[in-house]
Amino acid sequence: MNLFYCQNLSKKKISLSKEESRHCIKVLRKKKNDIIRVTNGKGTIYITKISSIENETVQLENLKTEFILNRKTKIHIAIAPPKNRIRFEWFLEKVTEVGVDIITPLLCTNSERKQINLIRSQKILISAMKQSNNSILPQINHPTPFKDFLEKIGNNSYIAHCHTMKKVDFKTILAKQKKDKNITVMIGPEGDFTREEIIMSEKRGIQSIKLGENRLRTETAGIISCNMINTIL
Amino acid sequence: MNLFYCQNLSKKKISLSKEESRHCIKVLRKKKNDIIRVTNGKGTIYITKISSIENETVQLENLKTEFILNRKTKIHIAIAPPKNRIRFEWFLEKVTEVGVDIITPLLCTNSERKQINLIRSQKILISAMKQSNNSILPQINHPTPFKDFLEKIGNNSYIAHCHTMKKVDFKTILAKQKKDKNITVMIGPEGDFTREEIIMSEKRGIQSIKLGENRLRTETAGIISCNMINTIL
Repeated sequence: MNLFYCQNLSKKKISLSKEESRHCIKVLRKKKNDIIRVTNGKGTIYITKISSIENETVQLENLKTEFILNRKTKIHIAIAPPKNRIRFEWFLEKVTEVGVDIITPLLCTNSERKQINLIRSQKILISAMKQSNNSILPQINHPTPFKDFLEKIGNNSYIAHCHTMKKVDFKTILAKQKKDKNITVMIGPEGDFTREEIIMSEKRGIQSIKLGENRLRTETAGIISCNMINTIL
Repeated sequence: MNLFYCQNLSKKKISLSKEESRHCIKVLRKKKNDIIRVTNGKGTIYITKISSIENETVQLENLKTEFILNRKTKIHIAIAPPKNRIRFEWFLEKVTEVGVDIITPLLCTNSERKQINLIRSQKILISAMKQSNNSILPQINHPTPFKDFLEKIGNNSYIAHCHTMKKVDFKTILAKQKKDKNITVMIGPEGDFTREEIIMSEKRGIQSIKLGENRLRTETAGIISCNMINTIL
């Protein structure tokens, strides 16, 4: 059954947004008294009934919890968006399907792309969440300069790069991790992080990792690191 | 350093194909006596010297083995190509970056797309192999009807689907696998495999698996299953 998204599901009587209402009544041709599934994007899916359709807005009632997801590991992917917009949008779609909690577009020395259309990105995330029957809507942050990001970074943070410096295999690290941790992975732009950026990160206690033997494209590294965490933890 | 591809590297004196020669001399502006890296797509990378450039064809000599990759686990992804050609091509690129050995486009009951441009697919595979500095060129088979595929299928074969039938978590299966096995994963089209196709597979000893809790798109399931094998084995 299709899944809809409504940010604020705390009230008893709720209405879908204009866009979600349109999808519900125009595309899927739902009617009054139909039962639909709605997620708040924070892990819960509800079963609800369409109580009325007024001014092309769907009103819902009788929320019953169908499912609550408790992700013990919170995954944060900080990634320098590739030059090609489509490649970044692929990343957004795939990483939402696989399961991610926070995405931060990183602005690095070698970044060629400095701007992100956050409204468009948000739409892709919502669509991928609904499509994959996932109840977690990833949070996407504003593009953040590398140095600013380092200042706020927590423990369990890793930087993936292709320089010939000492690196630990990410799967070896994950095998030793505990499930209930927040993990951050930083992925560089097409020209990779600079040596200075890596040295700066290591000074902040961020470990250099490799995701395998092959040289992955930026968006592939983002998806693969996220999937490795979901697979091992 | 850039990587080139040459299928037949057994002889001492070898020449690059027209396309690879063009890339070498026109795009990367390599000249006589330059050292370049070449792979045979079968796991070996050689260091070679450009001995001459005749009729826009690069001649190489002095092969020295730089690297031999021995993949113990051979991964075969049999996948029903998505309706959207771009999604299939994205799958080809990503799965080559991550590491796969054989790809078979499957023709299923719910397949909307029955034809694949194998020449174009091959170009994408070669390009992704070179880009990712990988020495394995995946073999891509002709599109194969589901029933014909089942007849030739070996042990350690799995079928991923979204039906509410008994399924085992793929990562649990992989954790018990031995490294030196061939593994085949079958991925269905947008409308999924039919119940009949799944029952038919199970009769052949093919186990039903799930790749996680979310409903993945066809191409995502292909990449994610491949990455799970590469991560765990």
